Amino acid sequence: MNVLQKVTTLNELWDARSILPEPVGLVPTMGFLHEGHLSLVKRACEEVASVVVSIFINPTQFAPTDDLEAYPRNLERDAALLQESGATLLWTPTPEIIYPPDFQTWVDVEEITKPLEGAKRPGHFRGVTTVVTKLFNAVQPQKAYFGQKDAHQVAVICQMVRDLNMPIEIVTNPIIRERDGLAMSSRNTYLNPEERRAALVLSKSLAAAQSTYEKGERDATTLRRIMEKIINTEPLARLEYVSCADYDTLEEMSIISKKALISMAVYLGKTRLIDNVVLE
Amino acid sequence: MNVLQKVTTLNELWDARSILPEPVGLVPTMGFLHEGHLSLVKRACEEVASVVVSIFINPTQFAPTDDLEAYPRNLERDAALLQESGATLLWTPTPEIIYPPDFQTWVDVEEITKPLEGAKRPGHFRGVTTVVTKLFNAVQPQKAYFGQKDAHQVAVICQMVRDLNMPIEIVTNPIIRERDGLAMSSRNTYLNPEERRAALVLSKSLAAAQSTYEKGERDATTLRRIMEKIINTEPLARLEYVSCADYDTLEEMSIISKKALISMAVYLGKTRLIDNVVLE
Repeated sequence: MNVLQKVTTLNELWDARSILPEPVGLVPTMGFLHEGHLSLVKRACEEVASVVVSIFINPTQFAPTDDLEAYPRNLERDAALLQESGATLLWTPTPEIIYPPDFQTWVDVEEITKPLEGAKRPGHFRGVTTVVTKLFNAVQPQKAYFGQKDAHQVAVICQMVRDLNMPIEIVTNPIIRERDGLAMSSRNTYLNPEERRAALVLSKSLAAAQSTYEKGERDATTLRRIMEKIINTEPLARLEYVSCADYDTLEEMSIISKKALISMAVYLGKTRLIDNVVLE
Repeated sequence: MNVLQKVTTLNELWDARSILPEPVGLVPTMGFLHEGHLSLVKRACEEVASVVVSIFINPTQFAPTDDLEAYPRNLERDAALLQESGATLLWTPTPEIIYPPDFQTWVDVEEITKPLEGAKRPGHFRGVTTVVTKLFNAVQPQKAYFGQKDAHQVAVICQMVRDLNMPIEIVTNPIIRERDGLAMSSRNTYLNPEERRAALVLSKSLAAAQSTYEKGERDATTLRRIMEKIINTEPLARLEYVSCADYDTLEEMSIISKKALISMAVYLGKTRLIDNVVLE
């Protein structure tokens, strides 16, 4: 079994990268790994010769009111899980390495970052696209792996890769769920037992909308109302948004006439959770 | 002698690129090539195994009032000059290839784009950094070659490459001048004979400032005044700016205590010319 190599600085990364067997896959993460991340690592291990995992809690994608400081960390456990999963190289840059003092360059994706997560988290995607560009350039993978849990993020990154001619294939894996349906997320660790139970309204409401769709309903307003109603039955849940959007543009639909993304953000106490289902 | 290969679409480029001997150098141009461009091509031929030249008149770096439509073109002559100079591959994408209908991603460099050319040409550098990122990603060169004539552009691109961890070395060549001192530029072709003669005030005023500096003058205001005075002696010339700036940050200096860029933009009739000298 391979031993997971660990690097921090850019020079350490480049030295290690330059002798990796090609092709190389990158799994960018913020750490506190769960089965969702590991499904990406395992898929990468099947598809490429070398799997690089980055762990970087990117400050520029958090708003001042977000949970940057509280974001869960457990590097030792993460490294052990990656070793087990067969990853080749773990890169854990510091904020100073990614954002040196005179840093001043940003990647901005426009239209597709405006609705949904972009509307609720101003500046979030600018931080995401900038750091992902830096990770891509630093690691130079042929493939990069992202979870469908962050469906809006995936759409934004695919748009950026196309627009900027980045020589990288974006691979996505389906959402991995707990047995009871809760989408896996590092932020689930914030939930107290009551909130954890209440958090099931996300997957339940999505399942109800999906099943209604599968029975033939095509009116997006009806589907949104079904989801809102279920979420509002749960006193601990506070709905931020539900959406039935065009899968490609993320614009809200009135009639579902093509591939659609139904998605939502819901607060359980102070914890903001997102979830989604794709209607083909 | 090599035969210059010519490609237009991205797929043609990638097919050709994939079998080029490494390392690869890129000389990005807007065409209508002169000795300045060719000095970059010749240097690249000495330093790398394959020299890719792009010719693309990038619409997003021109303001609506700029000279996009009038910008000189002569692709046949350019190709002949490149063949002679030993370039390997000529890429001439169309605007539709670079900017497809749903294009929406921009690279923004902040502080260093604000003074000088950035102040006078709002949006110009956003167009430059975005297209250069696309050219870099599409061609994947190990080195890219830029002329020092566009000193501010070089500074912006170096900042972008550092900030985004682009795996590319930026190489610059000194300004190539006509015998009488005029910096070579595709835009010189716009000048009528009187303007062509009057355009010598740029290099003359820079030479005067440099010689005053070399005699020991370190007051930046004095150097700027020397240049302004010479330019104002020429009735056909209209000064836009003169600058004595910190070479690294491009902030105006009051005392020249480190490497400095003295630069200017001057109109001759409707033609805007720029020129500069570095004080070490």
